[in-house]
Amino acid sequence: MATATEANAQGYNLQVDYVVQYSFGHLDQSQAIEQLEKLLQTLTEVGLQTEVRQGDESSLLVFVRASKKQLKRAVYRSRVRDWLYGIRNTEPEPADAIDLATETEADRLRVISHLITLPVQEGGAGITPQHGEWKNVTAVFPLHDEETNKRWMREWSQKTFLSEEELDQIRNKFGESVGFYFAFLQSYFRFLIFPAAFGFGCWFLLGGFSIVYTVVNSLWCIIFVEYWKRQEVDLSCRWQTKGVSAVQTRRRQFKPEKEIQDESTGETRGVFPATKRMQRQLLQIPFALLAATALGVIIATCFAIEIFISELYNGPFKTYLVFIPTILVSALVPTMSAVLVSIATKLNNYENHETSDAYDVALTQKVFVINFMTSYLPVFLTAFVYVPFASRIVPYLDVFHLTVRPFVSKEASTTKRSHFQIDPARLRNQVVYFTVTAQIVGFAMETIVPYIKQHAFREYKAFNKKRQNKTEHNGDKESPERVPAVVYDDPPEEAQFLKRVRNEVDLSEYEVTEDLREMCIQFGYLALFSPVWPLVPVSFFANNWIELRSDFFKICNEFRRPTPLRTDTIGPWLDTLGFLSWTGSITSAALVYMFSGNAQHGPNGEPTDIKGWALLLSIFFSEHIYLAVQHVVQIAMTKLEPPNARKERSERYLMRKRYFESTLSAQNDADQTEESPSESLGLSRKALEEDARQSSLHETDPAERFWMRQHGWAESAKVGAGIIQARPTSTGKKEQ
Amino acid sequence: MATATEANAQGYNLQVDYVVQYSFGHLDQSQAIEQLEKLLQTLTEVGLQTEVRQGDESSLLVFVRASKKQLKRAVYRSRVRDWLYGIRNTEPEPADAIDLATETEADRLRVISHLITLPVQEGGAGITPQHGEWKNVTAVFPLHDEETNKRWMREWSQKTFLSEEELDQIRNKFGESVGFYFAFLQSYFRFLIFPAAFGFGCWFLLGGFSIVYTVVNSLWCIIFVEYWKRQEVDLSCRWQTKGVSAVQTRRRQFKPEKEIQDESTGETRGVFPATKRMQRQLLQIPFALLAATALGVIIATCFAIEIFISELYNGPFKTYLVFIPTILVSALVPTMSAVLVSIATKLNNYENHETSDAYDVALTQKVFVINFMTSYLPVFLTAFVYVPFASRIVPYLDVFHLTVRPFVSKEASTTKRSHFQIDPARLRNQVVYFTVTAQIVGFAMETIVPYIKQHAFREYKAFNKKRQNKTEHNGDKESPERVPAVVYDDPPEEAQFLKRVRNEVDLSEYEVTEDLREMCIQFGYLALFSPVWPLVPVSFFANNWIELRSDFFKICNEFRRPTPLRTDTIGPWLDTLGFLSWTGSITSAALVYMFSGNAQHGPNGEPTDIKGWALLLSIFFSEHIYLAVQHVVQIAMTKLEPPNARKERSERYLMRKRYFESTLSAQNDADQTEESPSESLGLSRKALEEDARQSSLHETDPAERFWMRQHGWAESAKVGAGIIQARPTSTGKKEQ
Repeated sequence: MATATEANAQGYNLQVDYVVQYSFGHLDQSQAIEQLEKLLQTLTEVGLQTEVRQGDESSLLVFVRASKKQLKRAVYRSRVRDWLYGIRNTEPEPADAIDLATETEADRLRVISHLITLPVQEGGAGITPQHGEWKNVTAVFPLHDEETNKRWMREWSQKTFLSEEELDQIRNKFGESVGFYFAFLQSYFRFLIFPAAFGFGCWFLLGGFSIVYTVVNSLWCIIFVEYWKRQEVDLSCRWQTKGVSAVQTRRRQFKPEKEIQDESTGETRGVFPATKRMQRQLLQIPFALLAATALGVIIATCFAIEIFISELYNGPFKTYLVFIPTILVSALVPTMSAVLVSIATKLNNYENHETSDAYDVALTQKVFVINFMTSYLPVFLTAFVYVPFASRIVPYLDVFHLTVRPFVSKEASTTKRSHFQIDPARLRNQVVYFTVTAQIVGFAMETIVPYIKQHAFREYKAFNKKRQNKTEHNGDKESPERVPAVVYDDPPEEAQFLKRVRNEVDLSEYEVTEDLREMCIQFGYLALFSPVWPLVPVSFFANNWIELRSDFFKICNEFRRPTPLRTDTIGPWLDTLGFLSWTGSITSAALVYMFSGNAQHGPNGEPTDIKGWALLLSIFFSEHIYLAVQHVVQIAMTKLEPPNARKERSERYLMRKRYFESTLSAQNDADQTEESPSESLGLSRKALEEDARQSSLHETDPAERFWMRQHGWAESAKVGAGIIQARPTSTGKKEQ
Repeated sequence: MATATEANAQGYNLQVDYVVQYSFGHLDQSQAIEQLEKLLQTLTEVGLQTEVRQGDESSLLVFVRASKKQLKRAVYRSRVRDWLYGIRNTEPEPADAIDLATETEADRLRVISHLITLPVQEGGAGITPQHGEWKNVTAVFPLHDEETNKRWMREWSQKTFLSEEELDQIRNKFGESVGFYFAFLQSYFRFLIFPAAFGFGCWFLLGGFSIVYTVVNSLWCIIFVEYWKRQEVDLSCRWQTKGVSAVQTRRRQFKPEKEIQDESTGETRGVFPATKRMQRQLLQIPFALLAATALGVIIATCFAIEIFISELYNGPFKTYLVFIPTILVSALVPTMSAVLVSIATKLNNYENHETSDAYDVALTQKVFVINFMTSYLPVFLTAFVYVPFASRIVPYLDVFHLTVRPFVSKEASTTKRSHFQIDPARLRNQVVYFTVTAQIVGFAMETIVPYIKQHAFREYKAFNKKRQNKTEHNGDKESPERVPAVVYDDPPEEAQFLKRVRNEVDLSEYEVTEDLREMCIQFGYLALFSPVWPLVPVSFFANNWIELRSDFFKICNEFRRPTPLRTDTIGPWLDTLGFLSWTGSITSAALVYMFSGNAQHGPNGEPTDIKGWALLLSIFFSEHIYLAVQHVVQIAMTKLEPPNARKERSERYLMRKRYFESTLSAQNDADQTEESPSESLGLSRKALEEDARQSSLHETDPAERFWMRQHGWAESAKVGAGIIQARPTSTGKKEQ
C-alpha cells in the first residue's frame, strides 16, 4: 500500500487531484465568465481548492485539490455508506480520527470524484460533464503518475507473472475495475501454461482432433471459469468491495415513467415498471436475428466467393481476384457491426435502465451477439458447412460464373469444377489465422497505431503553433486576429507540467470493458476450436504476456487516467466465459467426431461417412458429461473457501461476538443490580412466588393450580424420586 | 397473528411449553433419582419452571414452563443474534421492553427449545436428548393445540385454497419449516389448475403424445419452479427468516480432525479439512452406481418376468403366475431401498458434515438417487426399452422357459411367441398406475394405516392395564410385583390432560423432508411422463387437495408436535425440482417423437420406424430451447421483485437513511461549533489560509507555489476571465 499513500502522492503532479476542462469556445465572453464563476464557486463550496490555467485555444484547465479536512469528511461519509450497505464490517471511526495516509490513492480519487460529481443532496457538487447545465465542462479526470507507471513498465518487462502485491498496486492506482481486469488477465495467463504445454505435446504426438486433448481442454475451461468465480470473491474481499454493487448510482439518462410515493420510506421517487421494460427487451430477439442474418449473409457470401475464386475459378486475374473476398469482408463486416452496435445502443437506451450497471450489462449482452457472429461464424462455416457439404454445395456456386462469364473460358471452368475436391487444410489454416495472425493484427491496431496517430497529432499541433506564431509576428499586434492562446504565458517552472496536462486532455477515455471483451473472445477460440489445432493455447500464452504489458502501456499513454471505479466482478463477461466453454463442449465433440479420422492430412469429411445419429449422440454425451462435471467442480469450489473470504468472515464473526458479549454482560450487570446476588435457583424461586401471588387472584385457573403443585425443582425432584422408588428397578427392567 | 399470541396460548395445555420425557427403566433407583435432580436443576437454572408427573411404567414426564422474565430475556438474546446476522433489520429493543404478545407461538417455542438444548456457553441448558449424559432424556417436545387443530381441519375441509393468513397461522403454530412445506404444497396445488384444465382439454381433443401439451407442460414446469424460487424469497421476507441459514448450529456428531487456533478470532475450534471430506464424498459415485444397478437389475428382471408371463407364457397356472412379478417387486424393491438408504446414511455420517443443514442436504441427494430409480425406472423401461425393442428382446426371454419347461407344452409356447406383438396400452397403463393408483395407495399407507395401528396400540395398552389391574387385585398389595404405574394416581382434573400427554409421548417425530420428497417425486411424473397421458395433472390436482388436509391431519394426530425450526427455503428439494423439469424436457421430447404417430391406439413403435438422428435432434432442440426459455424466465423473475422483498428492502433503506442522516447532522453541528457560522466559501478560504501558513514553512515546495498563485475561487475566476477576454469569441468560434 505504501506506494499509494497520500504521503507519496504529494510527490507528483503538484498535488493536483483532478483536472476539469472548461471549454468556452462556443460561448460569448459574458456567458463564459459567468459559467466559469459558477463552476469555481460550486467546486469551492464542496471544499475543493481551485487553480485556473490556460488550456488550448478555447478551453481552460481548472486544477482541483481537496483540502485535508474536506477529504477526511468525504472519506468518512463514504465509509459510513459502505458500512451501512455491509461492505465494511467495522463501524468507521469519526472523520477527524481518519488517517488519510492509510487510504489508497484510488479510494482518495474516487472520493474526490464523488465530491465533484455526486448530486448536491448526497453532498457532492453535482457536476456532470457534458450534460445539462454543465455541458461546457468537457472533461474531469485525474493525472497520470508518470514515474510510477514508467517504473512498473520497466519492472514487469523483466518478469513473467505479476505478484499479488503488484496487482494491489494497480488497483491502488487505477481503482478496482482496472484492477479486476489485470487480475483476470493475470490468472488467465497463468492458467494458460497447462493447456499450452499439454497442447504442444498433443500437437506433437497426436496432431489435431485428438480426443485426449479435447477432453482435457474442456475440463480446463470448466476449472478456469469456476476458479475465476472463486477468485473474484477472494479479490472482492481482499479489496473490500464485496457487495459493492449494492451501492448503485442512478443513471442520469433514466426517464421515470411516473413518480410514486414509497409508502414505507415515504419519499417520492421516479419508477419505470419492470414489466414494461421487459416488453421493450423483447426487441432483443428480432435484433439478435437481424444481427445474425445481416452478418451471416455478408460472411457467408464472401466465404462462397472466396471458395469459388480460390478453388473453382481459374480464369485470368485469379492472382488479384483472390483478394476480393478479403477486401469485401474487411470492408463490409466492420461497417455492418458499427451499424448494428449503434442500433444496439439505441435499443439499450430505449430499454431505459435505472442504474448504469444494469445498462452496461444489457449493452454488453447485445454487443456480444455481434462479436460472436463476427469472430466465430467463419470457422463454423468452414467446419460444419464447407468441409462436410462442400462437394454438394460448391456446384451451386455456378451463379458466380455468370458474373465472370466475360473473362473465363467456359470449358476451363467446367473442367476445373468437375474434379473439384475440398482443401483439407482450410479449417486449420483458418483457425491459425484467427488465433495467431488476427491476434497480432489486433495488438497492432489497438496499441501501436493509436500511439503513432497520437504522436503525429501532437506534431501537427506543434507545427500549427509555430505557423501561427509566424503570422502573429508578421501581423499587427493589436489586430483582432491576434491569437494569444498560442503563446502559453505559463510560469517557467510550470510549463513542463502544463504541457503534459494539455497532452493528457487530448487523450480519450479508457473503457475497461473493451479489453475484457477482447480476452473473452480469445477464450472463446480456445474453448470452441482449439481441438482443430492444439497449438492455440501456446499462441495465446505468448500473446497474453505481451497483452498484459501493452494494455498497461495503453492505459498509461493512450488514455486519460481512468477515474477509479469500484467493482467486485468482471460483470457480464463472466457469464460469457461460462457460455463459451459450454458451447465448446458441443463444438469440440462435433469436430472430434467428424474429423478425428483424418487428423494428419486435415479433414476432408464427406457427408456420406458422417452418421447423423452418431454425431448427435457424441454431442449429447459430451454436453451432459460437461454439465455434470461442471456441477461437481462448482460444488467443490464452494467448499474451498478462498483465504480472504475466510478472513472477512471471521472479522464479521468477531464483530458480532464482541457486540453480543457486550449486550449479554450489560444484561447480567442489570440482574446484579435488580436482584439479590443469589444463584439462579433462588432467582427462579422468586419468580415462582410471583406467579403464586398472581394465581392467588384467580385461584380457579386450572393452569395455575397445575403449576402450583410443586414449588421449585427440589420439590419436583422429591415427587419424581417418590414415583421412581415406588417401583423396584427390577420390574422397571422387565417393563423395558 | 392474533390466534397465536401468548395471550391465547394461555388457553390450552395448562400453559405447558415443553414436555420432557425422562426414562429411568434401565437405571437403578439412586442413579435415576440423581439424574432426575440434575435434570430438574439444570432446567431451573436457565429459568424454566418444572412440574413432574408420572409417565408410563418406566418414565417420568417433566413439564416445563418459561417464566415471563426469562422468556423475554431469551427472546431478546435471539433477536440480537438475528440482528447481528442481518436477519432482522432493526436493532432490538431491550429485554424489558419486549411485548411477548407480539411474538408468534412458534418463535416462543423455538426460543424455549433453545433454552433447553443450546450449549451452556450460548446461554442454554445444553440438554441433548438421547445423547451423552442426557441419554435417558428420551424426548423433548411441545404439546399439540388440539382445539385449534380441529378447528382448522374443519375450516379447510370447506375451502379449496388456504389464504395467506392461514399459511401464516400454520407457520405461527409449527414454525417456518412446516410453514414452507404447506406454502409449497399450496402453490403447487394452485399451479396445477392450469395444466389440469389444459391437460383434460388435450386428452379430450388430441389424446396422448400431443406436441402442444408437451410444450405447454414443460413451459409450465419452468414457470412453476422459477415462481416458487421467487415465492421462497417472498415468504422468507414475510416471515423474517431471510438469510437464516447463516445462523447454523454445529452437529453434535461432528468429529473434528484437529483443533486449530483461528488467528483472527483467536479461539480454538475443531476443523475437518474440506478436501478430505470431498475425497470421502467421491464415494457417492460408486454408491450411485451400486444403487442404480442393484435396483435396476431387480426392476428389470421382474419386468422381464412379467412380460414373459403375461405375453409369452400360456402354460398352466397363468392366472396365478401373473402375480409373481408384482409380488417380487413389492417384496424386493423396498428391502433393497432400505438397505441402500442405510448405506447412504453410513456414507453420510462418514462424510462428517459440520452443520446439520449440510448433513441433511447431502443425505437428501443420496436418497434421491434411490427414489429416482424406484419411482421412474419402470416407466423408462417400458417407454425406451420395451416398446421400441420388445420384438428384438422378447425372444431372449426364452431363458424363463427353462424354468417353466415342466409345466408348459413346448409347441404351445413357441406358437405363442412366433406371433408375439407388444401390448400398445402398457405404457399408458403404467403411467396411470403410478399417477393414480400409487398415489392413493401411498395416501393410505402414510395416513390411514398408521392411524389405525396407533389406535390398535392404545387399545392394546389399555387392555394390558386392565389385565394387570386384575392380577393386582388378586395378588398381595405389598408384594414387590405390585405394579403401581398402572393406576395413575393423577389428580382428577388433570387425568384427562395427562392421558393426552401420555398418548402424544408415544407418537413418533415428524420429518417434513419426507412429505417434501413425496411431492417432488409426484412433480417428477408430471414433468417426465405426463405427455403419455394428459390426465396426469388432473389426478394430481385431486390428490393434492386431499394431500394438503391429510398431511395436516397426520402432523396433528400421528406425530408429536414438531419443535419449530426456522428456514428460508425447502432446501435441496428445490434443486431436485429443477433437475426433474430439465430431464422432462428430454424425456417428453423423446416420447413425443417416438409415439406421437399412433396416439389413439397407444404406442406400438418398432425400432425400424424410429430414426436415431431424428430422435436425438428433437431431444437436442427441445432441451436447448428449454434451457434458453428457462434462462429468460429466470431473468424476468429476478426483475419482478416480490412484494415482501420490496418491503424488506425499503426497511433496510430507511434504517440506513436514518443512521446516515443522524451522522451527517452530527457532523454539521460539529462544524457550527468549531467554526464561525460563515458560508462554506469563507470556510474554504480559511482552509486555504491554513495551507498558506503551512506552505510558508517550506516555500521551496513547487506544489505549494503552484497552489498559492490564486487565493480562493474569486481570484481564479478573475484569472480565468482574463484568459477568456484575451481572445475575442469570434476567433473562439472559429477555433471550434
